[in-house]
Amino acid sequence: MICGRTPDELIRDIEGFHGFVAPGLVIGAFMVDLAREHIGQNTEADAVVETRHCLPDAVQILTPCTVGNGWLKIADLDKFALTLYDRHTFAGFRVWLDLNKAKAHPNVYNWFMGLVSKKDLPKEILIPAIFDAGRDILSVKPVTVRAEFAKREKKSKIAVCPACNEAYAAAQGTPCLACQGKDYYHTGS
Amino acid sequence: MICGRTPDELIRDIEGFHGFVAPGLVIGAFMVDLAREHIGQNTEADAVVETRHCLPDAVQILTPCTVGNGWLKIADLDKFALTLYDRHTFAGFRVWLDLNKAKAHPNVYNWFMGLVSKKDLPKEILIPAIFDAGRDILSVKPVTVRAEFAKREKKSKIAVCPACNEAYAAAQGTPCLACQGKDYYHTGS
Ligand SMILES: [Zn+2]
Ligand SMILES: [Zn+2]
Repeated sequence: MICGRTPDELIRDIEGFHGFVAPGLVIGAFMVDLAREHIGQNTEADAVVETRHCLPDAVQILTPCTVGNGWLKIADLDKFALTLYDRHTFAGFRVWLDLNKAKAHPNVYNWFMGLVSKKDLPKEILIPAIFDAGRDILSVKPVTVRAEFAKREKKSKIAVCPACNEAYAAAQGTPCLACQGKDYYHTGS
Repeated sequence: MICGRTPDELIRDIEGFHGFVAPGLVIGAFMVDLAREHIGQNTEADAVVETRHCLPDAVQILTPCTVGNGWLKIADLDKFALTLYDRHTFAGFRVWLDLNKAKAHPNVYNWFMGLVSKKDLPKEILIPAIFDAGRDILSVKPVTVRAEFAKREKKSKIAVCPACNEAYAAAQGTPCLACQGKDYYHTGS
């Protein structure tokens, strides 16, 4: 069982949320499972993922932590690793894909390192190889998350922008960031 | 119906994913519903949310877009707004909570602006008030998402860090960001 699921149930839950079975998400499920076992089932755990690819969804599918409830944070380190930590003591466990161990599973290693094309290593081969590898390719170590990172964000003070008349976080200054030109869109189609 | 769900089904889906019924998530559901109606059911839409609070989960519950599959992006503007846009043309619709309209729904307005305590406005009153307000408190406009923001990220080149022996994005330089001291944890419990 991986996070209380059979492989078929895991695949179904991944497809339901993520849209398709990404190899990184299956590895991520084994990572969450390993971290969860170390921290214990009774610990209220928050989560950190070290990449925006795949791992956020592994945590969101398999734990109560989501981006929107603030219990999952993303550290922009661009590494394939995640941490579950006690939300009161900040003590937890970091799990990562260990390259030395992964070398014993060449299909998984070659996919992860980008050494092989999708054509040469189709999912029908790669996904079973990942299930076969399971935890064998992972390492885990105890860590303590820095307090300034672990702290729950306080809701910021709200201001109303004189330019767009929308509410925004007052700490941005006046006008709001979007009206300062930092928007991601222009109006009109 | 909101995104094809009855209010009860929506509440159930929110609780299942987010853990509890956050008022902002119920408003977010009406926002996704309105944006989806404008862009049309047959458009392959990516999403942007302008805050990390609540709205990412509204999109992740109610659309195929997730943080981990890259179809949902978070713009750090700290505003209660979201955009659904055509992933091929970048044309879409931005929906925001319109303060002028919200004033006609004092419970919703006072909660949103932080003018009232949880004790004075319990969820048993606030959540029905949000369902009652529905789309009345929202505005929508056509936008085009800037190409540099809308672009799907390419997978970055992978390097192996000589200090920690983990894989990371080569663009960070050597050693990896974590070994440069930008980690969020220290080792040990
Ligand atoms: Zn503004
Ligand atoms: Zn390193």
